Formats: sequence, structure tokens, C-alpha cells
Amino acid sequence: MSGVVVTGCPRAPLTVVDGLGACGVATVHEAQGRKGLLQSHLRPIYRGAQIAGSAVTVSLAPADNWMIHVAVEQCQEGDVVVIAPTSPSDQGYFGELLAQSMIARKVRGLVIEAGTRDTAELARLGFPVWSKAVSAQGTVKETIGSVNVPIVCAGQAIQPGDVIVADDDGVCVVKRGEAEAVLKAAQAREQKEATTRARLQAGELGLDIYGMRERLADKGLRYVAYGDTKEG
Amino acid sequence: MSGVVVTGCPRAPLTVVDGLGACGVATVHEAQGRKGLLQSHLRPIYRGAQIAGSAVTVSLAPADNWMIHVAVEQCQEGDVVVIAPTSPSDQGYFGELLAQSMIARKVRGLVIEAGTRDTAELARLGFPVWSKAVSAQGTVKETIGSVNVPIVCAGQAIQPGDVIVADDDGVCVVKRGEAEAVLKAAQAREQKEATTRARLQAGELGLDIYGMRERLADKGLRYVAYGDTKEG
Amino acid sequence: MSGVVVTGCPRAPLTVVDGLGACGVATVHEAQGRKGLLQSHLRPIYRGAQIAGSAVTVSLAPADNWMIHVAVEQCQEGDVVVIAPTSPSDQGYFGELLAQSMIARKVRGLVIEAGTRDTAELARLGFPVWSKAVSAQGTVKETIGSVNVPIVCAGQAIQPGDVIVADDDGVCVVKRGEAEAVLKAAQAREQKEATTRARLQAGELGLDIYGMRERLADKGLRYVAYGDTKEG
Amino acid sequence: MSGVVVTGCPRAPLTVVDGLGACGVATVHEAQGRKGLLQSHLRPIYRGAQIAGSAVTVSLAPADNWMIHVAVEQCQEGDVVVIAPTSPSDQGYFGELLAQSMIARKVRGLVIEAGTRDTAELARLGFPVWSKAVSAQGTVKETIGSVNVPIVCAGQAIQPGDVIVADDDGVCVVKRGEAEAVLKAAQAREQKEATTRARLQAGELGLDIYGMRERLADKGLRYVAYGDTKEG
Amino acid sequence: MSGVVVTGCPRAPLTVVDGLGACGVATVHEAQGRKGLLQSHLRPIYRGAQIAGSAVTVSLAPADNWMIHVAVEQCQEGDVVVIAPTSPSDQGYFGELLAQSMIARKVRGLVIEAGTRDTAELARLGFPVWSKAVSAQGTVKETIGSVNVPIVCAGQAIQPGDVIVADDDGVCVVKRGEAEAVLKAAQAREQKEATTRARLQAGELGLDIYGMRERLADKGLRYVAYGDTKEG
Amino acid sequence: MSGVVVTGCPRAPLTVVDGLGACGVATVHEAQGRKGLLQSHLRPIYRGAQIAGSAVTVSLAPADNWMIHVAVEQCQEGDVVVIAPTSPSDQGYFGELLAQSMIARKVRGLVIEAGTRDTAELARLGFPVWSKAVSAQGTVKETIGSVNVPIVCAGQAIQPGDVIVADDDGVCVVKRGEAEAVLKAAQAREQKEATTRARLQAGELGLDIYGMRERLADKGLRYVAYGDTKEG
Repeated sequence: MSGVVVTGCPRAPLTVVDGLGACGVATVHEAQGRKGLLQSHLRPIYRGAQIAGSAVTVSLAPADNWMIHVAVEQCQEGDVVVIAPTSPSDQGYFGELLAQSMIARKVRGLVIEAGTRDTAELARLGFPVWSKAVSAQGTVKETIGSVNVPIVCAGQAIQPGDVIVADDDGVCVVKRGEAEAVLKAAQAREQKEATTRARLQAGELGLDIYGMRERLADKGLRYVAYGDTKEG
Repeated sequence: MSGVVVTGCPRAPLTVVDGLGACGVATVHEAQGRKGLLQSHLRPIYRGAQIAGSAVTVSLAPADNWMIHVAVEQCQEGDVVVIAPTSPSDQGYFGELLAQSMIARKVRGLVIEAGTRDTAELARLGFPVWSKAVSAQGTVKETIGSVNVPIVCAGQAIQPGDVIVADDDGVCVVKRGEAEAVLKAAQAREQKEATTRARLQAGELGLDIYGMRERLADKGLRYVAYGDTKEG
Repeated sequence: MSGVVVTGCPRAPLTVVDGLGACGVATVHEAQGRKGLLQSHLRPIYRGAQIAGSAVTVSLAPADNWMIHVAVEQCQEGDVVVIAPTSPSDQGYFGELLAQSMIARKVRGLVIEAGTRDTAELARLGFPVWSKAVSAQGTVKETIGSVNVPIVCAGQAIQPGDVIVADDDGVCVVKRGEAEAVLKAAQAREQKEATTRARLQAGELGLDIYGMRERLADKGLRYVAYGDTKEG
Repeated sequence: MSGVVVTGCPRAPLTVVDGLGACGVATVHEAQGRKGLLQSHLRPIYRGAQIAGSAVTVSLAPADNWMIHVAVEQCQEGDVVVIAPTSPSDQGYFGELLAQSMIARKVRGLVIEAGTRDTAELARLGFPVWSKAVSAQGTVKETIGSVNVPIVCAGQAIQPGDVIVADDDGVCVVKRGEAEAVLKAAQAREQKEATTRARLQAGELGLDIYGMRERLADKGLRYVAYGDTKEG
Repeated sequence: MSGVVVTGCPRAPLTVVDGLGACGVATVHEAQGRKGLLQSHLRPIYRGAQIAGSAVTVSLAPADNWMIHVAVEQCQEGDVVVIAPTSPSDQGYFGELLAQSMIARKVRGLVIEAGTRDTAELARLGFPVWSKAVSAQGTVKETIGSVNVPIVCAGQAIQPGDVIVADDDGVCVVKRGEAEAVLKAAQAREQKEATTRARLQAGELGLDIYGMRERLADKGLRYVAYGDTKEG
Repeated sequence: MSGVVVTGCPRAPLTVVDGLGACGVATVHEAQGRKGLLQSHLRPIYRGAQIAGSAVTVSLAPADNWMIHVAVEQCQEGDVVVIAPTSPSDQGYFGELLAQSMIARKVRGLVIEAGTRDTAELARLGFPVWSKAVSAQGTVKETIGSVNVPIVCAGQAIQPGDVIVADDDGVCVVKRGEAEAVLKAAQAREQKEATTRARLQAGELGLDIYGMRERLADKGLRYVAYGDTKEG
């Protein structure tokens, strides 16, 4: 499938995408049964961004960013570009000019299993990137790759059109066909957590709220007063 | 000692703890003879926090955060929770709900040789965490561990009630029985540094303030003008 | 060359140094033909600093910061101190007091293939450091090294007087003798990018601006509509 | 798909699998267009093994090896077990007893994005493992996962029945449906390399055998005698 | 406790030490309830060694191996020297000459949270070392440390006289006072495993030997034939 | 200097090169004042090789091995090829066919700040490689670099014609102009070590041979009998 650009990929409805973005990575990841989390070496280049978008996937040769230019043409409002080189690389594939081009198409951010640069400008522009490295080392435009084919990025298989959720905690992928169900589960989880939060803030203990004491005792947990232990 | 919660552990006086916190990690570490520094892969999830507190220690199974709920009940004002899994792990053992519970008990922060999540919310709440990783990957509640037993966290042996000092430079542990003496040494160091600082700001050189020139010459240090060297 | 301090090293003109600083790392690195970039594990201790200066180089023994005091005396306005230990180390060789001394001499920042400490104070002082680690672990003053000799720092050979450019993207070295030519190339590059930026912001595609479509087709890039692919 | 064991997965013919194993990782990877290589942090626990087999895939919870026992039952002669935990882990999921069980079913080896143990015994048994770590730290049997579902292991998407090739260079996956074509291409490549090898052994240069001189000159490569360069 | 050499530390009986060595790391670690395993970045410099010995502990300054010479005098037959610098270091603290000295005192091996050198000679001499790194970079003899004080090495608290077990799987520490009980548990474990091994070699499944099928079904594990799944 | 091949570079006499090779890395590194050691992440692909040779240096683009073919033509008996990409890379730039070509020219080995492949075949051929990684991932031939220009490899500045010494401990560079003097110092060191070795083997302590006891006492080292310490 190398050298292919797939056009016209379907996306999840923007309302669903936006709903997932509002929930954030930790909640969405839990809500879909703890799957889809990208590896934690992908870090945001600046703090505080929280987005969701439909994946435009890019598979490219190491040290070659040509296909990102190709990918921009396939982007539309609400997309997130997800990039994985075919072998490990920390170079800076992406910078401020490409960001300008994506902003013009209302792309929401970038996830890249490699390096990025112009990070100060990207922060000023408010264009968030989750990357493995920051590096000013540029790339060439010699080898073609593919756009909107299935890729593996930071340990997760990603299809074009899957929903990407990203915030300070990292990046999570939701399969397009499951996005609506996951949104419902995430929102239910948020409501339930709101109640728990209020009780915790009031000083109740998780031990009591979740009824953990009996099961802990069954497992053998013992309480010993300091001074009654040799080593304590 | 697995499966044990030690209750009623003694702490250092809060005035001593607070004094150490005001000095910060680098000063305290120097003042106690350069011991007690936790490994530098523990990093704060946000910049600018500077705390000290009495350690409530938690030893737990990898990928299992059950004992943190148990530990909260043992916390009191001025404590810092210190967590080490029994084998290496980067998962997210701690998030915003547990932070709410700790804040309700006036816990000052968390040190964890593993991962944390909900980092944006933790920053908004002003609840600082020093961790090895940020990860949204949750944990289970299947296996019991221990609270307030001696643990090793990021390369340091820590007893419950030891004083933990943490800031942007990292984390340092002061043995409870030495806390008062270390505080005095740290404050003395700060006073001495204030004088040195003023002289350095005025343009004096460390070479002169510390009287280093003679010893450097004894060791064989030579000054050569540029142009008189072949390679310079 | 161990145990040598070379005095009176020539620098590039400050106007040239300042010009390079205004361009930033990514532009300067491209402008000089993609050479001189230090390895990306050197990271700024705080965001937003962008500097250039003439290198005062320091070669020192691992865990020994004595030569930094020696180096300060060799510094003048517009310098950047560049430090490499003779074997790998993450300890904290540099802190607030040394920064005060450098600020008094109008040094612009520090690049160190090792650790630094007092990072919160350094940020408050506005004295930027690019380092491999943050660590409160201090160093000794037992062994002499050299100042203003050629060193290798984070993978780059650096001569005293070379121009160091550093920002959120990392650190780049420009040979002193090439600084003026590189500045011209960098400024030319900036002007060209300004035009491209405007076109990208207006929604034009890089594919068209750079005329990439034909060459991509020559390399065999194919466009396939979603649904016409088996795997897409 | 969690909690599912897929039975009766088809495999490629053993003659094709064996042919790929004889070619080795580097040749097979090149022959299929440089795709399918697992990340290089997977290393063999001992040197000299070279195998190929049909993938039995295992997705399991971190620190939990229960599903390996489930997977053994699904194995047949010529299989290779491929394991990925759902979050990163270095613990020792696999040891000598499980190897005995796999040997009894004529399994050829194991690929695991995690840790293994009993490595001396595994070497004595001649049961090769490619793993991310060696660790004696055992795992629990608390959580179910899945067998023979699609997984991502060390950066590659792997389907049950895909062909795994592994040797001292690492691990490569060949899609089941492409195995026969890849084998032909690999064997063709080997034949061509045999001719090249003979010429290189006889002292001919790659520059001449591959006809590189003209293209290098076109790109601007210059030859300069030592002494005619300032820096050489 | 810096600058102290504790003499005459008690050891476990050599018969107990030898028994633990015969069991190996994985078995001993399991037998004592999965505690005491040193971090897996400690690797043997050559394959095939399997030892146990009584710990002579060494705490030393980074890049300074002076205290190893001091420690040798404290060694006796059956000891293992365990070394941890007070801050992280990869330098080569130990080489062939020190090994000769230890061999003369019938020391069985070395565990060091740092680097070693002369590894080819050490292999020829049959003196095993478990280390974090291999490095020819030597160290100085300027700063005193301590011998036979409690240390933390690779994440484990170690007392002088504790039993160290080490093989290709890594390193494990057994508290001196628990050594005899752990040996009994380890030998019992070995006997039980011998029975299980025979059944596995005969082709029985762990699923049946350990009676796992019912509990797996209770947890919800489902078996689905290939072809009856959409994604399988 | 990109795109340049420097021909006819002078080498040190082969007798000197061979003498250095016989001494090995640790001895040579000490003999030249502990400089010139390459970073310890360069590891031999197999154990037991010990070589020295004159450096043929190669600077090449990341993921592009074209210049290795160019370099072979510049090699003669007794050379070692030293390769550094212009940005970090772990791909497999070198394999068995290039090794055949180098063996035909009596090249002794390869040092590469990147990856290598065909490692089993290279071991069979007895062609040693010190590399940062093992990877079957091939490279392209699109971009020119330079041969026999100064490079930085694994943290050391290397000139063509410098002497490279490599063994199981790592890799060290000796400047060509210093090779003869370093050889003499290394051989003197070996003779002195032979005497020390004999005394250590006979059971004498380094403490006595090197006369360390007095200086240790001056620094404050105290001996305390077990039982007379609270913590010992």
C-alpha cells in the first residue's frame, strides 16, 4: 500500500468528536475499556491543549516529510493529522509553515511518532503537537509514502477517520464505528465521577464510598499500631 | 511485611517540616551532607511547586492502585504520600479524584515511582505530583500491599514519617530524627549564601571569594593567551 | 590540553551574534546547510528563551564543577558558556550562585551536557540553561580541566568563540568564521519564508506553491477513492 | 474483542514458512519492500537462533501472564507465540515451564513486547525468545485477555497466522496472504546477492558493480587530495 | 554514616548461601514472596554464571572507586561485593586487577549499580559481574565512602551480610535472617516444579494441570471459531 | 565540507597501530590521560574481538548508506571505518555484503554511531562491528556525504588517520600524532600492572601495595566493629 493516497475517507460526526474532546483522554480511555492509548513517550509540546479530531493518517519514510504536504490537501475542519515514519526517527518533520497550512484548513493538531520543531511558534499559534522529540533537524523530500492508510503510531493501530483525543495526559484513539457509544459511556462516567468527587471533597474516604474495607480484610490486610511492629 | 498498614506513625514537628520546605531541595540536600536525593527521573508534573511534608509510604503491586485508597485514611495535615510499586511501572496510578480526597485531608503532594494522570486538573487544583511518567493508563484493585512500611523509592530508602522536600529540582528525603539538625544546617547555609550572592552580584569572582587561585595553580592550571596555542 | 585556560579568544561581532539569535535555531541550522545541531536531549529548563552568544568552552571532570568558576573570569558581554564533562554525568554542576556571577558579566546563558539545579530560581532570574538533566546533586572541586579549548558537546565539535544559538527547539553551533555568511543566508531564508507563509495562510497548498505534484506522480504516487481500496 | 480466543486460525504452508526462515530477517524485510520490521528493542535472549513460524497472538493485561496458558492450547507445530501487554511492562511473563509446554507442541519460539526469565534454561533447551527485557519478576493470573486477535507488537500490527521471521537481527512479520510472494522475492534476492558477494570477495568495488560513480558525480561529490584541504 | 567501615559483619551459613545459589534467581525470588529483586538494568557481563554470596556493601562517591580497595580487606570466602555510587554513574569502577585481588580472597562476584571494564579478562578469569554499563572510563581516588553500611542498589535496600543470588536473569537479595526459611521454600518449589515439568513435557496443558478452565470461564473468556468473527 | 572525499590521508605506522591493539581499550585510554573514549552505548555485535586500525571517517545523511560504498575505495590494510550520521539514527546501514568488500581490502572492523545488520553472518566472518543498535532496517542511496573529513562519533572528535582501538570494553581514539607516545605509555603501564597483578594474586591488598591507609585515615575513614554501630 506504499505510494497511495486514499481520498474521501468518512469521519465520525463533529458533534461526537467534540464531545469526546470535552471528556479528555483519561475518561475516554476508561470509557472504552482501557484500550487505544498511545504510548506515553508522546508528549505535548506545550501544556493545556485538549483536542479531538478525525485522523488523517500519514506513513512516511524516515527523515522525509514530503507526504505531510500531500496529507494537508486531504484535511478538512476537525481533523487531526497522525504521522508515523516507517522506522524510528527523532528528526523535526513538522514546523511552523506546515502548521500555517493546516490552520488554514482548520486542522486541530498533530500527533507524530517522531520529532517536531518551531515549538515556540507553534505554541504562539496555538497549534498543539504531541511528539516523541523536539528537534530542529529538518528532513528531505525524496521518497513517497502513503496517506489515509492504516498505520501503527506509538503502539496503536490507527485507521483514517478514527477519532483522536489528546491532552496533557497523552493521546488516545477511538475507532470511528465505536465513537458514539464511547461518547455515551464517557459522559456517563463523568456524571458518576461528579457525585464521587463531591463526596471526596467533603472528606469521605474512597474506602467507604467504594465499600472496599471488607474485600481488603478478606485479602488479609492487617492494621498494626506503630510501636507494635519491629520494622515499622 | 506485605499486607500491613502501620497506624499512628510519628512525624517531625510541622514547624521543622515547613522550614525545610522553605529552604528547597538543593539547599537541604547540601545541608545534610549530600544524601537522600531521589533519582532525577522523578519530575514535577507542573513547574513552580515547592513543598515539604511527612512521608506516608505506600508499597503496592505493579498496575494496582488499591493501596492508595488505604493510604489516604492514614494521612493528616502536612503529609506527602510516597509510592513505589514492587516492580517497575509507568502506568497512571493516581488522578484527580484521589487528589480531591488527599486535598480534603490537607495532604501537600505526591511522590510516585510510576505514572500519574489527570495532570491538567492536578495543576488547576494546585496539587503537585513528582512522577516518573504521565500516563492515562489506569490500574486495577486486585492485590494488597502495605502502608507506612519502609520502602525504596527512586533509589532512596524511605521510612514513614521521614521528611520529603520537593521542588522543580526534584525530591529529597530527610530522616525524621535528623530533620531538626538538617533544618539548622540548611538555614545557616542560606545565610552564608546570601552574603556570597551579594558579592557575586557586585561582580566579584568566585575564584577570589572562595580563594581558589592558589590551589588551582598548585594543581597545575596554566593560562595561555590565544595565538600562543597550536590548537586553541 | 588538560589544565589549560586560553585567554583572549576572539568572538564574532555582537551584531552578527544578535542577528543569528533573532533568527532562531531552526532557521540558522537550515541556513548553514543543516550542520551544527546539538543532540536533542539538551532541553531548556524553561520555555520561551531565545538567545545567541559566543562560546566560552569548558571541559571538566565528571562530578566536578571547579572549572566553571575559572570560566566565569573569561566571560564577557554576549557570551554563552558551553560545558562538557569528560565522561557522561547527570549531576547538577550549575546553580543560582554561579548564574548570579555570570549575569554580573552579562553572560546570556549556559549549555551543559550534564545536569543543572536551582531551576526555579534560574527561571525567575531569566537566565536560560539548556541541559541534559535537572538534578540537585552537587559536585566537587578536586580536579582541574580546561577553558576555551575545543570540546565536543552533545555530539558537536565546538571551538571557543563559535556562535551558539539556542531556543525552545534546542541548540545549534555556527563556526565563528562562517557566522556572517550564515546570518545572511538565514535572513534571506526568513524573507522567503514570509512570502510562503502568507500564501499558506491564504489557503494555498504546499503541493502547489512548491510545485510538487508532478514529481510525486513521477515517483508513482496514486490517488484512490475510499471504498475502491480493499484495506483503506 | 477482550476475553476472546479465536480457534482454528489458518496458517501459511509450512514449506513457505520454512523457506522464509531460511532467508532470515534482513533478506525477508527487504524482499517485501521494507515493511513489517518490529522495533529493534526486541532482542534475542541468546545468539544464533534463526526461525520462522505462524503467529499465535496474545493480548494480555500488564503483569498478568494467564493468557499464555490459554494460548498454548491453540498452538501447533510450526507456530511462534507473539505477545503484547496492553500497557508497557518489563516483567518476566515467560519462563522455562511454559517453554516446556510449548516445546511439547512443537512451537518454535516466542516474541514478547515485555520481559522473560529463566533465560539460561531457555538457552539450554534451545527455545529462542525475542524480548524487550530479561526479568525474574513474575506475573499474576487475575485478568483475562485474548488469543488470536489482531495485536500491535513492537510497533507492528500482527494478525494470527501471519508469518514471523526472527534471528539475531530482530523480528519481522510477513502477512499470511503475501508469504508465498515474499518468499519468491527473498529467494530471488538471495541469488542475486550470491553473484554480488563473489565479485566483492574478489575485490571489485560496489561503486563499480552498482555503477554509482556517475550519479555521485552528478550529485556533486568531489575528490580532494589530502594536503589540498585546509581542514582534512 | 559516611566514612565508616564496619568490620566483622555476620554472614548466613555457607551451606545456606550455596543452596540458594543452586536454586537461582527466579526460584528464590518467587520463594520469598516476590520481593528483593534488583532492577533489570543490572546485566551480567557474560552469560552462564550462577552464584550466591554474602553481601559486602560499598557506598562510594560518583566516579571514585577508592572504597573498593577498602572493601576487599573486609571480604572472605563466599562473599559478593555490592556497590552503589551516591549519584548515578556509568563509569568503569572495577577491572581485572581488583578482580585478581577479590579472587585471592575467594570472593564470588560483583554487583555494581554503575560501570565495569576489562570485561573480556573478567570473563576469562571466570569472575562474574552484574553491572549497569560497560565502560573503560576510569575513576579517581579522592573521596571516602563507607563499607558494610546499609545501601540501596538498583532499587533494593541491602544490608551487609544479606545473601545475594545472581544469574543470567538478574540479581536478587535475601535478608540474612530469612535466608534459611527462603532456602526451604525454594527447594520445595523446585520439587513441585519437577512434577509439573514432567507433565508439561508429556504434553499436558497448564490449563488442566492448574485447573484454570473454570475460573477463566467465570471471568468471561469465550472461544470463537475463526470465520465466526468479523475481525479475527 | 559536505560532498568531499579526501584521498591519500596519512596513517600511523602499522607496528604502532598493532601495538595499541594488543594493549586494548582500557589500558590505552588510561595511558593517554583518560581522553578519547567513545560513549559506552557503542557495543560490539559479538564478544571477544580486539582490534586497532587507522580511521577512515564517513559522515553521511540519516538513513542513507551511500557513502560507505565510497569509503571502501579509500580503505587499505589496517584501516577501521568510522561512521557517524548527521542526525541520530538506529537503522541498519551496514551488512554482510559491505563487510565482504571491506574484508577484501583487509579492513579490520567498523565503528558506527547507528545500526548494523546481518550480525550473525558478520560474527561468522569474524568482521567486528561496534554499533549503537542492531536493526534489519535498510537505508537509501540518495544523498551524498563526505569521507575522510573530521567527524564526531559517539561524543569524540575523530580525524581521518587517527588510531581506533576497540574491544569488549568499547572504543577509544588516539590522535595520529600521539600514537607512538601513547603506545610507549601503554606498554609501560602494562609492565607495571604485571607486577601489581602478581602481588594481588598472592593475596596482598591494594591498600598496602598502593600505600593508601594513611591517606584514608587523614580523610577521616573510621573502622567500627559490627555491634558497636546502631545502624550497621
